Amino acid sequence: MKIRICDLGKHVGETVTLKGWLFNKRKSGKVQFLMFRDGSGLLQCIVFKGNVSEEVFEEAKALTQESSFEVTGLVKEEPRAFGGFELDVTNVKTISKAEEFPITPKEHGVEFLIDQRHLWLRSKKQWALMRVRHRIVKAVRDFFDERDFTLMDSPIITPNACEGTSTLFETPYFDLGSAYLTQSGQLYAEASAMAHGKVYTFGPTFRAEKSKTRRHLTEFWMVEPEMAFYDLNDDMDLAEEFLEYIVQSVLKDKKQELEILERDISKLEKVKRPFPRISYDQAVEILKENGVDFKWGDDFGAEDETIISSRYDAPVLVHRYPSEIKAFYMKRDPENPKVALAVDVLAPEGYGEIIGGSQREDDLELLLGRIKEHDLPQEFFEWYLDLRRYGSVPHSGFGLGIERTVAWISGIKHIRETIPFPRMIYRNTP
Amino acid sequence: MKIRICDLGKHVGETVTLKGWLFNKRKSGKVQFLMFRDGSGLLQCIVFKGNVSEEVFEEAKALTQESSFEVTGLVKEEPRAFGGFELDVTNVKTISKAEEFPITPKEHGVEFLIDQRHLWLRSKKQWALMRVRHRIVKAVRDFFDERDFTLMDSPIITPNACEGTSTLFETPYFDLGSAYLTQSGQLYAEASAMAHGKVYTFGPTFRAEKSKTRRHLTEFWMVEPEMAFYDLNDDMDLAEEFLEYIVQSVLKDKKQELEILERDISKLEKVKRPFPRISYDQAVEILKENGVDFKWGDDFGAEDETIISSRYDAPVLVHRYPSEIKAFYMKRDPENPKVALAVDVLAPEGYGEIIGGSQREDDLELLLGRIKEHDLPQEFFEWYLDLRRYGSVPHSGFGLGIERTVAWISGIKHIRETIPFPRMIYRNTP
Repeated sequence: MKIRICDLGKHVGETVTLKGWLFNKRKSGKVQFLMFRDGSGLLQCIVFKGNVSEEVFEEAKALTQESSFEVTGLVKEEPRAFGGFELDVTNVKTISKAEEFPITPKEHGVEFLIDQRHLWLRSKKQWALMRVRHRIVKAVRDFFDERDFTLMDSPIITPNACEGTSTLFETPYFDLGSAYLTQSGQLYAEASAMAHGKVYTFGPTFRAEKSKTRRHLTEFWMVEPEMAFYDLNDDMDLAEEFLEYIVQSVLKDKKQELEILERDISKLEKVKRPFPRISYDQAVEILKENGVDFKWGDDFGAEDETIISSRYDAPVLVHRYPSEIKAFYMKRDPENPKVALAVDVLAPEGYGEIIGGSQREDDLELLLGRIKEHDLPQEFFEWYLDLRRYGSVPHSGFGLGIERTVAWISGIKHIRETIPFPRMIYRNTP
Repeated sequence: MKIRICDLGKHVGETVTLKGWLFNKRKSGKVQFLMFRDGSGLLQCIVFKGNVSEEVFEEAKALTQESSFEVTGLVKEEPRAFGGFELDVTNVKTISKAEEFPITPKEHGVEFLIDQRHLWLRSKKQWALMRVRHRIVKAVRDFFDERDFTLMDSPIITPNACEGTSTLFETPYFDLGSAYLTQSGQLYAEASAMAHGKVYTFGPTFRAEKSKTRRHLTEFWMVEPEMAFYDLNDDMDLAEEFLEYIVQSVLKDKKQELEILERDISKLEKVKRPFPRISYDQAVEILKENGVDFKWGDDFGAEDETIISSRYDAPVLVHRYPSEIKAFYMKRDPENPKVALAVDVLAPEGYGEIIGGSQREDDLELLLGRIKEHDLPQEFFEWYLDLRRYGSVPHSGFGLGIERTVAWISGIKHIRETIPFPRMIYRNTP
């Protein structure tokens, strides 16, 4: 049985051996304080000159930052220590002495750190971030699994473009010409929802956009639930419950990580239903009240989103956008065909859009007309149109971007730190 | 509250309304039996002429296969019925009448069915398969989450090739030249394991192989755990526990689906630890005993795998392959450098390799030598080599292919049915 730092609660008063790396150390006369990490946590290991042989004391002294070693000692409860435990060391055995580690406690530029991403991941903040990310992904899946959704992975390689070809990654596909990396699994999720009622697809999506903002990655993960017999209101109810569930799951299980990230937890505690819901029209009013020269029919920019969301503590649902700026498959509002039954959810604190969704057009003729209006090649959409030919039903869904959600919940400014190995227009390494 | 077929146990004796599609129907004088599906299950709905108005009886009669409708009736327990319940119908309301559905109960060719994949998913067998797939994916994640692994998604877009460039999908990447779709997240998982100790990466992987066999897809999902301080034996122990966990989870929760798939459950019940473990040398002996003209040093073909695995009821772990046929990053056996500390797991019943894994080379100099031997561009691997420069530790991992696992557990011959929208060399639609 391998014991890790996260198991120490079960071993207080016992002598245990752990394997890991030297995070950092300090020395004070006859005592060395080794900050030890093993991936599951951090542990202060105390090497008293009087408790160990001369050789062991020297072995500990020779450990460089990030050297791997085995440490044996007595587990003690210590509420003041990070993690709540300390180790009274009786033995130290070096596994591999590290060369001079490029990332030191001093400040480094972000470009340098991303070049060293494979090593940067070992730093305290990045470690905490990845654990929050994992908890978010788990919450996403648990939420849908508990509610009887079926996971239906959409394909990554697709023959056509859902929202235009200019922002697509293209790859030759044997004798079939070009194929493209998916931007969204939604159309496939719709087909799946007709088979399973409630489904979700969850995988990487790609945008070859030349955006250099702190909100954009070329490769990011997206979860997209799709539900038969859900209208826009049902869709908004689900999105709301979903976001509350994610935030509260992280709050409950990842307190230590949020502390490392210096996240203001009181802000997350306010993410409780009901969330505010406003129409696009009302959002435009808010912008005008704030002196923004905004024309009805335009889409919101990042700054507009910040102005709108800053009114609220919880995420705000903005619904019924002008149809002109929304995708062809969105259903028009029967009470006002100038707007689509769409909803975007804007995260608080300026984190921008984290969810985009809509009720889908379920009428064959209207959808056909929309495909023509948008000059889309109908033959590529025949299978999608079939969903309206064979037992069409009202249905809705949305997509949540994982990285933006991680950024928001963790309180991280730039999205590039929210994924293990970020891909941006100027970077596809390491 | 929307009631679905899977919730009916809580509504026996109540009158409920459900929404879904007509799976099929039969008529017998004054009774119509509507087989109704809503994605969560199947339900026999009985329309007695005496119980409903003339209009309702006619409305039911006019429903075509796959028409969507709303049905109201009294929930009755009926152990002989599929799923255990029946509905005594009092009302039927058509939502959308389906055109003539292309997939009828008669036999269709597989090519035709895959062309209609978006509709084929609605068939009973495909529905059951996707639910088994979902349960497998959930078991995979639960297994690692319960054991304190951190999910660390590896990138899909990669700058270089892990196992040669001939089988890679290539895409232009802005001003950075060509990028490639990942074949394995392993190298990244190794970096992640040095930060988190125990990690897993789980996502789509790609092989542009011109293989037309029933075991190959160009896009498939793979889970790859990677563990610091695990040697080959630890790795094999984990793989064994993992496979048992997956199979027993499906057996426990997906009995109905396995029944639809006509799976011989007794075969799955035998998948209990300990599994047999044999060396490559022993496997070669088995082949020779079976009259196969096999040369030490060659890799096993599909037929060889079937011969070896047919000896056993459980998956068999074959370890210590000739280093020559294994990847550069695998550690040599210190007791016999001609073999690598690799393990493949062969599924029973001829399903072939479902797991490939190894202990990794953790010595910088040996790894450098291996990169040179294999004529790999060292500059692409500098970051990977860093993992041996800064606190190298013994570590191991493996990869499990989801689709082959679904095929095996479901008892499905061809892997193309195990993923919602399969991608093969001659197909990237729908």
